[in-house]
Amino acid sequence: MIIVPKELTRETFAAFGDVLECEGLEPALINHGLTRKYAPLSVLDIDPGGQVQLALYRSQAVELPFRLRELERHPLSSQAFVPLHDRPFPVVVARAGDAPAAADVCAFLTNGHQGVSLMPGVWHHHQLTLGVESDYLVAERGSGEGNLDLLPLDEELYLGAPG
Amino acid sequence: MIIVPKELTRETFAAFGDVLECEGLEPALINHGLTRKYAPLSVLDIDPGGQVQLALYRSQAVELPFRLRELERHPLSSQAFVPLHDRPFPVVVARAGDAPAAADVCAFLTNGHQGVSLMPGVWHHHQLTLGVESDYLVAERGSGEGNLDLLPLDEELYLGAPG
Repeated sequence: MIIVPKELTRETFAAFGDVLECEGLEPALINHGLTRKYAPLSVLDIDPGGQVQLALYRSQAVELPFRLRELERHPLSSQAFVPLHDRPFPVVVARAGDAPAAADVCAFLTNGHQGVSLMPGVWHHHQLTLGVESDYLVAERGSGEGNLDLLPLDEELYLGAPG
Repeated sequence: MIIVPKELTRETFAAFGDVLECEGLEPALINHGLTRKYAPLSVLDIDPGGQVQLALYRSQAVELPFRLRELERHPLSSQAFVPLHDRPFPVVVARAGDAPAAADVCAFLTNGHQGVSLMPGVWHHHQLTLGVESDYLVAERGSGEGNLDLLPLDEELYLGAPG
């Protein structure tokens, strides 16, 4: 089974989290008129016992079609990915809740500027990059303890090239 | 009085916060070997009553020398700035505590890749950009209520060009 990534928009992604983009937000003028502030792109949901850390993920590119072998989820916290580059990247997710079947897995492709913030518990494939090794700023819970569930995907499932 | 920005390093910036950069951090290999994770770049310090939001600041460029007229501080929370571009930008700060004198104000220039995470209470000039309008991903407390103090700088103080 091949999943073809679809366009990432606030509407198509609403069940999984926030799209990090300015489009559609009315900016506030701050810093004595020098800065347009678009906020919030996302409010992070971190359990009270957790701290928020910033990390940098430097990810090797993968080739499509790419075999999706495993999903993961972070039940205690949001996790946000901000591309430090201008290339589209795929986001593979399934709704929070019971273990999803292969047919429940969705894929999106960013437009080159968008990031994503996943809600706690949303199943997702680990972060994927296309083309060349790429950097992402990640905002996440500092400790992974009790905050990582893994789910093997036994059915042969591939992420395909966008249509 | 003119402040000339100096090189931004973890050591020179330690009294004010964290430099967001990979250099000097040993990465963890995650995502089945596809991703090198550099963490933490910074652990955000947000008061328990606050939420962390992600915002985008789109800032007009200023010309140097630039008159520094006001500092601000956020007593309840860290604030982190991640450049979504590869141009150096200035960071103007003074230590947390009593209102600083002009002579207590320091300026740094990033190397084009670094971001900064300011500790709670650190006095700082609002975010400044050079050259062209530029975007920054900002991680900050969601509500500004009770979290913004302003300090006019009466003495004539300028940010100068780097040496």
